[in-house]
Amino acid sequence: MDLQGSFHVYDTTLRDGAQQEGLNLSVADKLTIARQLDDLGVGYIEGGWPGANPKDTEFFRRAALELDLKHAKLAAFGSTRRAGLKAADDPMIAALRDSGAPVVTLVAKSHDRHVELALRTTLEENLAMVRDTVAHLTAEGQTVFLDAEHFFDGYRANRSYALEVLRTAFDAGAQVAALCDTNGGMLPAWVADVVNDVRETTGVRVGIHCHNDTGCAVANTLAAVDAGATHVQGTINGYGERTGNADLISVVANLELKLDRRVLPHGLLTEATRIAHGIAEVTNVPPASRQPYVGTSAFAHKAGLHASAIKVDPMLYQHMDPIGVGNDMRLLVSDMAGRASIELKGKQLGFDLSGDKELLTAITNRVKELESRGFTFEAADASFELLLVEMVEGRRPSYFDVETWRVITETLSHRAEGEEAVSEATVKLTAGGVRFVVTGEGNGPVNALDSALRTAIGQAYPEVAKFDLIDFKVRILDQGHGTDAITRVLIETSDGASSWITVGVGHNVIEASWQALVDGLTYGLRKHHQD
Amino acid sequence: MDLQGSFHVYDTTLRDGAQQEGLNLSVADKLTIARQLDDLGVGYIEGGWPGANPKDTEFFRRAALELDLKHAKLAAFGSTRRAGLKAADDPMIAALRDSGAPVVTLVAKSHDRHVELALRTTLEENLAMVRDTVAHLTAEGQTVFLDAEHFFDGYRANRSYALEVLRTAFDAGAQVAALCDTNGGMLPAWVADVVNDVRETTGVRVGIHCHNDTGCAVANTLAAVDAGATHVQGTINGYGERTGNADLISVVANLELKLDRRVLPHGLLTEATRIAHGIAEVTNVPPASRQPYVGTSAFAHKAGLHASAIKVDPMLYQHMDPIGVGNDMRLLVSDMAGRASIELKGKQLGFDLSGDKELLTAITNRVKELESRGFTFEAADASFELLLVEMVEGRRPSYFDVETWRVITETLSHRAEGEEAVSEATVKLTAGGVRFVVTGEGNGPVNALDSALRTAIGQAYPEVAKFDLIDFKVRILDQGHGTDAITRVLIETSDGASSWITVGVGHNVIEASWQALVDGLTYGLRKHHQD
Repeated sequence: MDLQGSFHVYDTTLRDGAQQEGLNLSVADKLTIARQLDDLGVGYIEGGWPGANPKDTEFFRRAALELDLKHAKLAAFGSTRRAGLKAADDPMIAALRDSGAPVVTLVAKSHDRHVELALRTTLEENLAMVRDTVAHLTAEGQTVFLDAEHFFDGYRANRSYALEVLRTAFDAGAQVAALCDTNGGMLPAWVADVVNDVRETTGVRVGIHCHNDTGCAVANTLAAVDAGATHVQGTINGYGERTGNADLISVVANLELKLDRRVLPHGLLTEATRIAHGIAEVTNVPPASRQPYVGTSAFAHKAGLHASAIKVDPMLYQHMDPIGVGNDMRLLVSDMAGRASIELKGKQLGFDLSGDKELLTAITNRVKELESRGFTFEAADASFELLLVEMVEGRRPSYFDVETWRVITETLSHRAEGEEAVSEATVKLTAGGVRFVVTGEGNGPVNALDSALRTAIGQAYPEVAKFDLIDFKVRILDQGHGTDAITRVLIETSDGASSWITVGVGHNVIEASWQALVDGLTYGLRKHHQD
Repeated sequence: MDLQGSFHVYDTTLRDGAQQEGLNLSVADKLTIARQLDDLGVGYIEGGWPGANPKDTEFFRRAALELDLKHAKLAAFGSTRRAGLKAADDPMIAALRDSGAPVVTLVAKSHDRHVELALRTTLEENLAMVRDTVAHLTAEGQTVFLDAEHFFDGYRANRSYALEVLRTAFDAGAQVAALCDTNGGMLPAWVADVVNDVRETTGVRVGIHCHNDTGCAVANTLAAVDAGATHVQGTINGYGERTGNADLISVVANLELKLDRRVLPHGLLTEATRIAHGIAEVTNVPPASRQPYVGTSAFAHKAGLHASAIKVDPMLYQHMDPIGVGNDMRLLVSDMAGRASIELKGKQLGFDLSGDKELLTAITNRVKELESRGFTFEAADASFELLLVEMVEGRRPSYFDVETWRVITETLSHRAEGEEAVSEATVKLTAGGVRFVVTGEGNGPVNALDSALRTAIGQAYPEVAKFDLIDFKVRILDQGHGTDAITRVLIETSDGASSWITVGVGHNVIEASWQALVDGLTYGLRKHHQD
């Protein structure tokens, strides 16, 4: 399947999605999300705006070294050159050129008023900027897509100029003109009319970029495709500024499952739910339970009413088989874990559970019970593996035995602003037959606990010195209960060669962190002793 | 304006919306919501299913006594009579008749397979059930609308039978046939085709009832209206089973503001944001910030880049004036923050900074410096206001003077799994000229600190008793340092009438929380002393 061919699924989670209020992605987050997008099989991943901020420049530098994409090509986003400069001399264009991305998506003004008021230049110079920049980047060997900003509003205000911008870009070598409903006010019939007119009048290849301000981003995107657009832009979980962008998974699921168009590599849409939730773990934005296709409620039924009819034929009560997007029908409140998914997950981790129905049921029930308390195993594979070992072998792997721990955090008035508090942790444990009482210090309570725990265990297991705690995420579940809410902590530990994620849950953020720390070290020690 | 005339806005929040997972409304909640729906000016309020559960029976009893509706009429929802019984003898039909509701919305099977498998009766008897029930209730003086359940799937499976159900209901006196996409799998073009065919073939008055399983509920509803439907059903905030129902406010706002159709009494759409949020308070479902039209982010802009153009013409960057739905443009102070956006933001908070370029530059630099350390003022308006006051007046508002604080978290081995740790905080401070040394306990360290701080300050400022910490968010800002990373804490505090958000940042999660707690109380005290 040619993902860069006759139809493009173009993801902009890392660029336009990151414009969402409160969403803040590190370079490591972006690399993780890019791998997940590639697992979904999108054709293009827009990684950011190199040159506009150091983080995005760094992303493209590291992406070239670290990302090994199976399906997607990377796209760098950027603006046309500055007015009055040559593209070849504009440092912002140099940053796009030097990003190493095979594709550059160039945002250009196509609304006359924006050219005059925001760019503060003439309509002619704007066309020259489009022409010069596209031609320059194309000559340098990059594929150029055009993002025609505010296109629909611009088309209404000055149709001929808006079309002229597209023609200019295509004459200079652009390969797609993505029409952007930047302010998000369009409705499907309007989008269809404009796409039809653009195709008939200019003959350019049309893409579509919608926002959800009228609640129609997905429908607008589908209307454009129906009118001949062959390039769809969107974001995972509909992240984006204001009301968000078109939810790319809804768009793709509708195209594949409702309109019978193949736009992803075969079979990958069944990863959609896992990937949508995995990306939500990275962004730390709680997933919307009502999200189409992948939401935890999307195939949930209040079973009492229809249970017998559902048993006769579940398709009487759902619009599709949820397995098509990797989701699951749920008849009761809570839990996502079906036996089938646990069996599958076990297989992925090297445990064949298919022969033992009783064990499988016991594991499923245990997972459901833990998930109802706030645990999640979607991201925390290492904690899940420890749980599987515990259920299969009858006892949880254990390399040390903790008596008690304590952390004190207090202010020291001579320290700098924002750095006045220090933490001190004391851990009492037995490891390798020896009892240790160790105190560690840190900038924060979990840091101090980690230090004390590692020092104590390291005396019995020197390999712990290789372990490094590389990520630490906290999510407050059950929001609305203030500081008394349930806290979930995810910790990622590395041994230099690979990394693993563990989870802890509790009312007390320190205790939840402690659980995840202990799991992280236990998993690492088990891995080391098996290798 | 005749809300029961040529176009119906029909709300089913209290019936189909209440099917949402986790949503549970008392009779008092339902009465409160009904008043809010009437304030919005909907034509019909579907209150529930009298006879099916005692709560709904009670709702209609109390509604008749207590609700004084200005605009809306109440509708009782119920099913056609049981097979083999006369409508006049069916106690479920009696409950509808006796509900006192002027309208009954009768759900009927229109999908042949559902008749056979779920109702377990014949296609002929189902038609008789429709005919008999509609005729009986009409004869008793009630207006009858038909909800044709699973209509679109039924139409695909057996078009002539599906149409026959509608004809039968109309011949017996029904006034609207609402075509229900019960399983939610439709797309706009399909809905339009079916509505067109139904109207042409049967001549009945068509209504539309959509679910959001394809992410197209709003667009499907609009497509139906475009094809001639004159009755739209939906729920506030899109509540409903699975992915929810069509968001009625988005539907109505699109009809009025985009398609220029008047469907609500003049001026009431400007109440939409207040009412959507007010209903969310009653349902206790946190409002989605990205919700079209009424979400808190729906008109939020990361202003840095475009602030100067926004100052020239805000409509360049929004698809409508947010005042039309009672919402407000918000400028997010982000790390792209320029002077123009801070000036605009200051104006929104009541500070005219335009005359003092030097102060404006100083504030901008301070914001940039704080944001580079991890602060964010996008959400934390209260901390931003305290910062503005500090810069404008030369000193930060302060109502108490903290000497030191300390928190101890430790394990107590006799507690239950996951609940083994307890926290204890001691705070030493001076407030109102008196020194306090107070110790508080809590499930977690921040909970304990909050308790100690509030107890101490409350002795000098009794109004603190009204303050409630209603939300607490933690975000680890990835620096690749694991637990040594920067932590950002956002805290939302309420005084019952309104709420405000403050931010704290630091290596130490406890200290970051402490800063946000102190800001939260300071902002609240300042507000209280100004009022």
